[in-house]
Amino acid sequence: MIRAGILGATGYTGLELVRLMQNHPDVNLIFATSDSQSGENLKKVFPSAPSLELISIEQAPLDEVDVIFLCLPHAASASTAQTILETNVRVIDLSADFRLRDENVYQEWYEYPHPAPKLLGEAVYGLTEFFREELVGARLVANPGCYPTSALLAIQPALKNDIFTGPVIIDAKSGVSGAGRKPSLKTHFVEVAGNLSPYNIGRVHRHLPEIEQAFTWWSSSPPLLIFSPHLIPAPRGLLSTIYVQLRPGWTESSVCELYQDAYNDEVFIEVLPMGEVATYAHVNYSNRCAIGITVAENILILTSAIDNLIKGASGQALQNMNVIFELEETHGLS
Amino acid sequence: MIRAGILGATGYTGLELVRLMQNHPDVNLIFATSDSQSGENLKKVFPSAPSLELISIEQAPLDEVDVIFLCLPHAASASTAQTILETNVRVIDLSADFRLRDENVYQEWYEYPHPAPKLLGEAVYGLTEFFREELVGARLVANPGCYPTSALLAIQPALKNDIFTGPVIIDAKSGVSGAGRKPSLKTHFVEVAGNLSPYNIGRVHRHLPEIEQAFTWWSSSPPLLIFSPHLIPAPRGLLSTIYVQLRPGWTESSVCELYQDAYNDEVFIEVLPMGEVATYAHVNYSNRCAIGITVAENILILTSAIDNLIKGASGQALQNMNVIFELEETHGLS
Amino acid sequence: MIRAGILGATGYTGLELVRLMQNHPDVNLIFATSDSQSGENLKKVFPSAPSLELISIEQAPLDEVDVIFLCLPHAASASTAQTILETNVRVIDLSADFRLRDENVYQEWYEYPHPAPKLLGEAVYGLTEFFREELVGARLVANPGCYPTSALLAIQPALKNDIFTGPVIIDAKSGVSGAGRKPSLKTHFVEVAGNLSPYNIGRVHRHLPEIEQAFTWWSSSPPLLIFSPHLIPAPRGLLSTIYVQLRPGWTESSVCELYQDAYNDEVFIEVLPMGEVATYAHVNYSNRCAIGITVAENILILTSAIDNLIKGASGQALQNMNVIFELEETHGLS
Amino acid sequence: MIRAGILGATGYTGLELVRLMQNHPDVNLIFATSDSQSGENLKKVFPSAPSLELISIEQAPLDEVDVIFLCLPHAASASTAQTILETNVRVIDLSADFRLRDENVYQEWYEYPHPAPKLLGEAVYGLTEFFREELVGARLVANPGCYPTSALLAIQPALKNDIFTGPVIIDAKSGVSGAGRKPSLKTHFVEVAGNLSPYNIGRVHRHLPEIEQAFTWWSSSPPLLIFSPHLIPAPRGLLSTIYVQLRPGWTESSVCELYQDAYNDEVFIEVLPMGEVATYAHVNYSNRCAIGITVAENILILTSAIDNLIKGASGQALQNMNVIFELEETHGLS
Repeated sequence: MIRAGILGATGYTGLELVRLMQNHPDVNLIFATSDSQSGENLKKVFPSAPSLELISIEQAPLDEVDVIFLCLPHAASASTAQTILETNVRVIDLSADFRLRDENVYQEWYEYPHPAPKLLGEAVYGLTEFFREELVGARLVANPGCYPTSALLAIQPALKNDIFTGPVIIDAKSGVSGAGRKPSLKTHFVEVAGNLSPYNIGRVHRHLPEIEQAFTWWSSSPPLLIFSPHLIPAPRGLLSTIYVQLRPGWTESSVCELYQDAYNDEVFIEVLPMGEVATYAHVNYSNRCAIGITVAENILILTSAIDNLIKGASGQALQNMNVIFELEETHGLS
Repeated sequence: MIRAGILGATGYTGLELVRLMQNHPDVNLIFATSDSQSGENLKKVFPSAPSLELISIEQAPLDEVDVIFLCLPHAASASTAQTILETNVRVIDLSADFRLRDENVYQEWYEYPHPAPKLLGEAVYGLTEFFREELVGARLVANPGCYPTSALLAIQPALKNDIFTGPVIIDAKSGVSGAGRKPSLKTHFVEVAGNLSPYNIGRVHRHLPEIEQAFTWWSSSPPLLIFSPHLIPAPRGLLSTIYVQLRPGWTESSVCELYQDAYNDEVFIEVLPMGEVATYAHVNYSNRCAIGITVAENILILTSAIDNLIKGASGQALQNMNVIFELEETHGLS
Repeated sequence: MIRAGILGATGYTGLELVRLMQNHPDVNLIFATSDSQSGENLKKVFPSAPSLELISIEQAPLDEVDVIFLCLPHAASASTAQTILETNVRVIDLSADFRLRDENVYQEWYEYPHPAPKLLGEAVYGLTEFFREELVGARLVANPGCYPTSALLAIQPALKNDIFTGPVIIDAKSGVSGAGRKPSLKTHFVEVAGNLSPYNIGRVHRHLPEIEQAFTWWSSSPPLLIFSPHLIPAPRGLLSTIYVQLRPGWTESSVCELYQDAYNDEVFIEVLPMGEVATYAHVNYSNRCAIGITVAENILILTSAIDNLIKGASGQALQNMNVIFELEETHGLS
Repeated sequence: MIRAGILGATGYTGLELVRLMQNHPDVNLIFATSDSQSGENLKKVFPSAPSLELISIEQAPLDEVDVIFLCLPHAASASTAQTILETNVRVIDLSADFRLRDENVYQEWYEYPHPAPKLLGEAVYGLTEFFREELVGARLVANPGCYPTSALLAIQPALKNDIFTGPVIIDAKSGVSGAGRKPSLKTHFVEVAGNLSPYNIGRVHRHLPEIEQAFTWWSSSPPLLIFSPHLIPAPRGLLSTIYVQLRPGWTESSVCELYQDAYNDEVFIEVLPMGEVATYAHVNYSNRCAIGITVAENILILTSAIDNLIKGASGQALQNMNVIFELEETHGLS
């Protein structure tokens, strides 16, 4: 049995982890922390959660577990990771702190110096389907952002195989849990219900450099990225509608075949039959990513759906844990 | 033209007032204040609002208007009202500060001494349909709470005519704007969507003494009140389902007739035909109250629906203003 | 391994059964039928469903399974059950056909003669917590309605122990999946979103005689029942707020104790701590029933929440199957 | 006073027309028809509607009004229009029947021959802001589709001034009322709530040729159009996010200026300040279109929001009526 701890269990990703672990046959949750609600029972925070006493980080026996999941705010994560890694415990970080490999890019986008730059070289980017080898035995995993997960799983085969030219336009639509559990006007029910809002569109959202970084791994001449997130009046779910211009010769059928080949062995990636588009309903409450392929004239339209809290966060984190410890990759996730 | 000011324009009742005033032929909105956003344009706060610069209370020319609407938090309201009333300006207070006529009851439920007890005797309870005479020319109006408005309009004819015995059970269901615009976990979209929560049920909600007080006006032996509010995943709307035990002899048809007679001349009260129940859809975005009457065995079930922000707050406030200044009562409200 | 079939798999209860069975360690789903979509893959109907070819009832190998779940419309269910029971296969009927033991009551409420009255004596009412003995080995189970499940689990200890007098008032609130999957104006998104509607209130809903029948089992002088369902703009969930008048001497604390004793050994019934009320969030996506107890003056207010599709339908059906075949009762449900 | 009739008043556009006409100072609604519900009161159909008896088309005194609004299904509209135009009555058609000027294109997309091709030359395309001159005194107006209204108002200045090259990519998001009031699984609350679905993406939606036709009016070399509608879990609202590649030299500031100049005199078009994006909240329940301008590298991103039932249908129809009869254009719409 893997012994696990969660730092920051009262946000949406923390809770989702607790829930998923309940059904994982190989994991014992040893502790879960909360800054604001230590001493409380998790059940008090979420009525449907299992009974579990929340403790403070200070009280957490960090070295008595095999792996710790960090569901902490950016920056807090990196310094905590550093402390934990001095013991022999593995870290899966759900914040953005170790996703960008270049500390200058980090500083530019997060507006403070990286708290633990020496660890950047070691962190494995946990987009599981593409980094399994590096994940086995890894000490530090940077769990990808929700938007990058949806975008990269969809675009990778097209980019890697160089089937398009020109910019990548990602029009993404996320449910509200993607904005976190901290109350704000932006997530107030009355402001969200019946509304739909684009935000940080163009080239200003912090997930943009994370997606661009992956472009450089898969293409020698990475395309321009335009990324437009929208907030949707739904609790969870994430859909990216992606537009690129195909090189001559590619058809809906041949792109479909390329994708089916690429993801043939992937249990969590569902390349949809021709003519079908991905929706939240394909994937919500699952660790799957559904990818639809549509070609109109020479434009390839990819629709890529995930559950932002599962494949976009806590599910993928568990999937990465499974790979690190060489467990069955689907354990706790099917 | 009536010159009006609004103190606290960036909450839901304040905004609704601004919106309604735009369509009122006899009112000029002279100023609107906001503590947190003075200096901003109201349009920045609510994209669909009219362009209007928000000022601080200190900047507001309180004595250059005919009437001021207070959309301030409890307690702040009462002391502000006191200051304003030293001039010749009328006050319509949308807070709870002047609803309870007994300062001891106020202190018991609001847990601090009433800030302006001397004004309690003068304040007119603005349930317009029942206090028109007192409202004409009134200096200070206590605009009723949303739950009391829905409950009292429904129960008054039955209570006044003494057609039932035993307790009054009010099972009320409110949209989320009733909880105010201040962000909190309770109003977070992800917590509310797909959920339904009773809260403060029994005899602990602050609207209970307000309803009970009105019982004493209409009955010499006021009934026990049980009041159970529920939070509904809808932005606006309020429905009270009310249960009382009829005295022998009353039937659905005779109760219906009683109600139709009682409200025959009321343009904003719609007594529904026998067999029809009230829903949010009957009243949302209007100043109306729809009342349905159902009798099963000897139990009378009243369904009473209002828009919590309009008849339950800002619409009734304007209706009261119309009465105070002897304007057409429906102006700005149809 | 239990071999199971589902007749009528493309409604909400059918689908929920399919989903739950995927996680049940002791069940193999052998077939699933659909009138309107036979030949299609279930995945086509619900993108998140497992891949499973739908067949017509005629094609279904009814006698090659151990148990068949009927998710058919009323009346169709009873005659199909009769056919199946001529073989050795067990039937769990999710329709209302076998819930009422008196064929005259059935005819009065369903407006046609019962199609298989001889089976009424044999059918076990599958409110699992109260009929375990009868369920072991049963050939025919009448799975309770969603409203009766929520109401009866809440009221049984109070009724059985005779702690109240006078009528039982049930103000119930259901998510839209309770209205079924057949499209109608009543379930159109635009009609439901932002609305809240009482319907069939008083003594006219078909679940009323089902609840009243159970009253006769647990009380020698069954109380009058008033039952008011409301449609809530949420996909799933069911909450009953129940009002009764306590006999002298009972307090919140003593009622709480009574309930905790009554349900002490029940894994799916959660009697909430004093002061806590039940919400959809306590139970959605689970087979649990959460019961809150509030006493105000001499009025007992019970709040009772279930997931209408799970404990209110398909989950309880599986729970009953577990009891019939003497499997672990929680299998597939935790 | 203009005397008006509505054919097909019980769909969402018909109801919205009735509602808007109530506040129009110069219009009398003489009759409203319904196929399925003639004889009923409109109030029965929509609880918040005014009291108005619905009649059948056969009963409607078509020649006793000045203008008839057609809210009929495609094809039924064209033949009815033909009949009406034989009298002296004007027709504003909210269906698609007269939007496409080329009967072959119509036949290709609607899959039957145009029922009244001779009228195609006369019909004025009612995108009010661009066809005022033709609208004055017009006998037959083709009211634009909701998607085309949002798309064309946003793209016209850019297209007319030839500021971009390459394809126009429109990623559009519509509330559910855009799908009509006829019940279907696609609009079932349980299927829509919490979901988000792209549909008819690429070049297959029937609004595509309508948008393309307008391209030919404003550009000598009309661009390729990619059009991807998405269904959003909201009752109303429509947002188009539009991507084009700017010609060298254009900046966010210069594009903004171009748009502000273009729409300077338009009371219903709101070009947002730089840095602001359009949302449903900008426009819902109004006849306005809000347009946001964002430039990232050389990509222009336009966000264009309308209320699909008002500026996207019934509001624009009234606006067109105002122009036809040379009334104040904002009457009934502010």
